[in-house]
Amino acid sequence: MRCEIIAIGTELLLGHTVDSNSAWLGEQLALAGIDCFYQTRVGDNLGRMVEALKLALARNDAVILCGGLGPTQDDITREAISAVLGVGRVRDEVIMERIRERFRVRGRVMPENNLRQAEVPVGASVIDDMPGTAPGLICPLGDQVIYAVPGVPRELKVMANATIVPDLRRRAGKAAIIRSRVLRTWGESESGLAERLAGRIQALEARGNPTLAFQASGIEGLKVRITAKADDLDSAEALLAAEEARCRELIGRWIFGTDEQSMETVVLEALRARGWSLGVAESLTGGLLSARLTAVPGASDVFRGAMVAYQSAVKYRCLKVPEGPVVCGPAVEAMARGARELLDAEVGVALSGVAGPSEQENQPVGTVWLGLALPERVESQLLRLPGDREQIRQYAVISLLNLLRLRLAGRDD
Amino acid sequence: MRCEIIAIGTELLLGHTVDSNSAWLGEQLALAGIDCFYQTRVGDNLGRMVEALKLALARNDAVILCGGLGPTQDDITREAISAVLGVGRVRDEVIMERIRERFRVRGRVMPENNLRQAEVPVGASVIDDMPGTAPGLICPLGDQVIYAVPGVPRELKVMANATIVPDLRRRAGKAAIIRSRVLRTWGESESGLAERLAGRIQALEARGNPTLAFQASGIEGLKVRITAKADDLDSAEALLAAEEARCRELIGRWIFGTDEQSMETVVLEALRARGWSLGVAESLTGGLLSARLTAVPGASDVFRGAMVAYQSAVKYRCLKVPEGPVVCGPAVEAMARGARELLDAEVGVALSGVAGPSEQENQPVGTVWLGLALPERVESQLLRLPGDREQIRQYAVISLLNLLRLRLAGRDD
Repeated sequence: MRCEIIAIGTELLLGHTVDSNSAWLGEQLALAGIDCFYQTRVGDNLGRMVEALKLALARNDAVILCGGLGPTQDDITREAISAVLGVGRVRDEVIMERIRERFRVRGRVMPENNLRQAEVPVGASVIDDMPGTAPGLICPLGDQVIYAVPGVPRELKVMANATIVPDLRRRAGKAAIIRSRVLRTWGESESGLAERLAGRIQALEARGNPTLAFQASGIEGLKVRITAKADDLDSAEALLAAEEARCRELIGRWIFGTDEQSMETVVLEALRARGWSLGVAESLTGGLLSARLTAVPGASDVFRGAMVAYQSAVKYRCLKVPEGPVVCGPAVEAMARGARELLDAEVGVALSGVAGPSEQENQPVGTVWLGLALPERVESQLLRLPGDREQIRQYAVISLLNLLRLRLAGRDD
Repeated sequence: MRCEIIAIGTELLLGHTVDSNSAWLGEQLALAGIDCFYQTRVGDNLGRMVEALKLALARNDAVILCGGLGPTQDDITREAISAVLGVGRVRDEVIMERIRERFRVRGRVMPENNLRQAEVPVGASVIDDMPGTAPGLICPLGDQVIYAVPGVPRELKVMANATIVPDLRRRAGKAAIIRSRVLRTWGESESGLAERLAGRIQALEARGNPTLAFQASGIEGLKVRITAKADDLDSAEALLAAEEARCRELIGRWIFGTDEQSMETVVLEALRARGWSLGVAESLTGGLLSARLTAVPGASDVFRGAMVAYQSAVKYRCLKVPEGPVVCGPAVEAMARGARELLDAEVGVALSGVAGPSEQENQPVGTVWLGLALPERVESQLLRLPGDREQIRQYAVISLLNLLRLRLAGRDD
């Protein structure tokens, strides 16, 4: 079963919107064992939409059209489907009533053009879920099928998960289950990991299942993705578990989590397990570390708060840093101790350094000090980070989280 | 002049990487007056790459291939171009030497397969700029041309700006200059702005130049993009300036900036103009507001720092909030005053509320209080925000910045 994704919208071609829908849909198709060999983007132009749709039908069993289902004159996906199917369109009474109702409950007058959204090509059916005002469409064409979904990511995801992917799997007969697991690593380069896994990758390539692949995720480290194909979910999960165990033997020391785990969820969990609370002092990162930690629901049982001591005067005044240089080990250790005291926490962490664009205290841009005050020890580490201002700030945050993670795991490296 | 963009890589189809390159290139082409009607993504498969390239050549004057120029066996863009051109490949001595040199200066042994990157289809030339190890290619085919650039965004951008876009403009003859300006608005809905601009949009549509278009940018408000076409830069800029003035007459009260200006740069500039410094107190936003402000280079002359008082105890202890409820007007006003005092600033701002997932103090998720302590007044505002945890946090931050912006501009709305 082959399925092409066509994203519709002149704003995509002009670069005003990045097409993340196709990436998301591509991932869902892969996980469902449906091949997706092409993804196409085309503007709001009837002729080119028809051409792209015809081409997609010539080389695939199914096509998903994303976007162009809104109420305005440049939303012409319905027209393009009608043209390719060679049929007219009818207004769906149920959908018309739903759209009218949505305006009624908000006490707003419905512009007449909203009823364009209720138009359905003859022979097509409407996708049950309708999280917005635009209905999705299922348009069969012999053994083939065209799906149309709105470009709004939230609406598209609901329709894909509830209807399109299950429908494709049903049409494909008993497709193999494909599942993947991501091992999240930090602190080793791609070539370093590749070297350590080389023998294993070679052995797997001979068998073809499961597979290992690397994905860079910027400052968030490297992901090692294990993908397994099997007849049923249990077998796929068993393959994943066995392969994860083998990978951990080879590169376990750099693995900080799996799948949706992030550095901050892992650190918060480790603190929670010890019954320790955390206080933060930030300078160059200006609140980024705290914002990351508090993005995690439930962080408030561990994270007390932070002192963002951006100007030096605030470091002296609020964190009891001795007057003098602030980009150095003693200052960042004082900040960590200050955060622990001020915020009445078991653990204090601190970041100070030079994010740029200009140097500070004769220290070059990228100089970053990590500070850590645990109940039993206080320490600091110097980093020289590459990149621009935002990269340095982000890298400083994750470096500090990783240092705290290692110490909480009882590791001294 | 029509140019198609083909992004190459199985990781794009599988959704492991979002293809932001095509969006960026699409924008550059639009600004250069080059039509881009199609963007295609295809995996690392020779047959399908050749097919996609042939199709692109059949419907365009030029094609830009992104990706597949690396050293490994699945990097086969060079092979695909050779196949379509019907020519062989030669190794470019200069490029081979450059690649060897890169390894030499790092003291590393060069794996032999890196020399694959020096392969050039017969008749093609190499793009001068080479920010990484993969050279870009210019491959003429009669009046048409195929460009190939690495998928690494930084490398691709250098090659596109320095070579490809100028080359395309030269091939297109004297292409019209296209320039655009973005008016950034906050606080009015798309339909509200559209209603106010309806007459103007209609008048412009009759003329066709300049044009107005809306772009939603989530919690960052709506952008109104003016696009002007002209023979030279000065005429294009004059059209933009005249149209901006007309738009400001109609929707000026919601415009907070233009182009690259953000809510935080505008607010920092307004504080700087008054010679005022800023202290922040954050609860539900947990450092997000401070992180946004400090992302702006040079924020340190205005932004003193922040108290992230996440747990209530920290609000009482460090910001002198009276013990009792913290999601209410008096508490957030106390936080704003406390930030001003603790951080020794002229202006204090504060955020308290319920980001979820669960309610707090019997207040529903989405309840947010903004607090503002200016030299001459202290005030608070209650918001009921929709969305999930992260949306509520983000929306709270920009709402507070906008409130501060209005007050600094002497506005009382």
